[in-house]
Amino acid sequence: METVDLRALAFDVFGTVVDWRSSIIEEVGAAAGRHGRTVDAAAFADAWRRRYQPSMDRVRQGAIGWTALDALNRASLDNLLRKFSLEVLDESEREDLNRAWHRLRPWPDAVAGLTRLRPRHVLCTLSNGNVALLVDLARSGALPFDCILSAELCRAYKPDPRTYRMVPELLALRPDQVLMVAAHPDDLRAASREGLRTAFVHRPLEWGAAATPPEPAGAFDLAAVDFEDLAAQLGC
Amino acid sequence: METVDLRALAFDVFGTVVDWRSSIIEEVGAAAGRHGRTVDAAAFADAWRRRYQPSMDRVRQGAIGWTALDALNRASLDNLLRKFSLEVLDESEREDLNRAWHRLRPWPDAVAGLTRLRPRHVLCTLSNGNVALLVDLARSGALPFDCILSAELCRAYKPDPRTYRMVPELLALRPDQVLMVAAHPDDLRAASREGLRTAFVHRPLEWGAAATPPEPAGAFDLAAVDFEDLAAQLGC
Repeated sequence: METVDLRALAFDVFGTVVDWRSSIIEEVGAAAGRHGRTVDAAAFADAWRRRYQPSMDRVRQGAIGWTALDALNRASLDNLLRKFSLEVLDESEREDLNRAWHRLRPWPDAVAGLTRLRPRHVLCTLSNGNVALLVDLARSGALPFDCILSAELCRAYKPDPRTYRMVPELLALRPDQVLMVAAHPDDLRAASREGLRTAFVHRPLEWGAAATPPEPAGAFDLAAVDFEDLAAQLGC
Repeated sequence: METVDLRALAFDVFGTVVDWRSSIIEEVGAAAGRHGRTVDAAAFADAWRRRYQPSMDRVRQGAIGWTALDALNRASLDNLLRKFSLEVLDESEREDLNRAWHRLRPWPDAVAGLTRLRPRHVLCTLSNGNVALLVDLARSGALPFDCILSAELCRAYKPDPRTYRMVPELLALRPDQVLMVAAHPDDLRAASREGLRTAFVHRPLEWGAAATPPEPAGAFDLAAVDFEDLAAQLGC
């Protein structure tokens, strides 16, 4: 890839920068344990994450007005607590568990990779997470982003074209000066349609060791095994 | 001030975090010098900054559509180059001089004060500067903000109420959990009307040693001599 004029990197967050699954498993298990319950926390975490796209679809299709991810996650949580027989959690415990998404652990290479990339590139998020969630996540994980960009700022969820266009517009760059970084081919294909360059990062453990990682179908400008590799390929 | 539930600090930037005047004087002087010219760079800097409010007024009053501060500054610059007989600057020199606003020096206490405040509070900008300008400013000055919030995100310039409301909305806080920090009483009064708390920071040198600093007219929740003092008063 011709990288001489690359100016900014926009990062998908859930699964790409942070390991939502192991973090959520741990917090669900702990919340159940405080009531002396056991729960299949991995099944709970996967079910919660699987409600992510359908819950955003209701916003995308106009069935409900703009709703921030925190509120979508909370509705999914209440539903799952019934399904997993954990209605015993009270309101403040539910709020706290929902905020587990604000303190997901970064993948082990994330902070080091971002730190290498930052001197030469503007680093921003481009996530469906709301701004408050992303700010908390960056603070708790010490993620050195220059700027928090979120679907919330254009009130449309990825892969809506407006979300990708927002990045060069707000950073005053051409689309091809921005590299979208994600572990999800769909996200990258949508970014590419708006003229952004694309880097696929393999996160084979996103859905756990037993799951089959998604194939990186499609042609991307770069493919990297982690953020250190991404930094190396960009000459950082 | 009762600070136990204070969660975020929103900072005005030009004059409050960064010393626009000495930075602009230096860059204007250097730009003229490259053509063997001398110029009253202090008068130029003051005149440029004085066009700031009238140029935004044209947007506020609807005379022109939304226009980012970079473009307003550039129009003012072209005008001033004629007035100060510096039309000799070519297009790339004008663009570069306009970008002087992207690399203004922080006040000497700014980075240390922000660094003390950050562990206990979310730190964001709330500036009429556009996002690209503020991102560059934070990077060049190593300003440790968690989040770049700009009038550009709501396409309305301070003191429009929407700009102040945006901060608690995007950070998912109550207005009284946000402290607006500024060296300009008007900015703070407008923030207070939207329910934010207010901290006046004295910047007596904003317009140079010969100018009379603005009186902090009005009642603010806090008044500080600099960001270190602000951190100390907030128990950081």
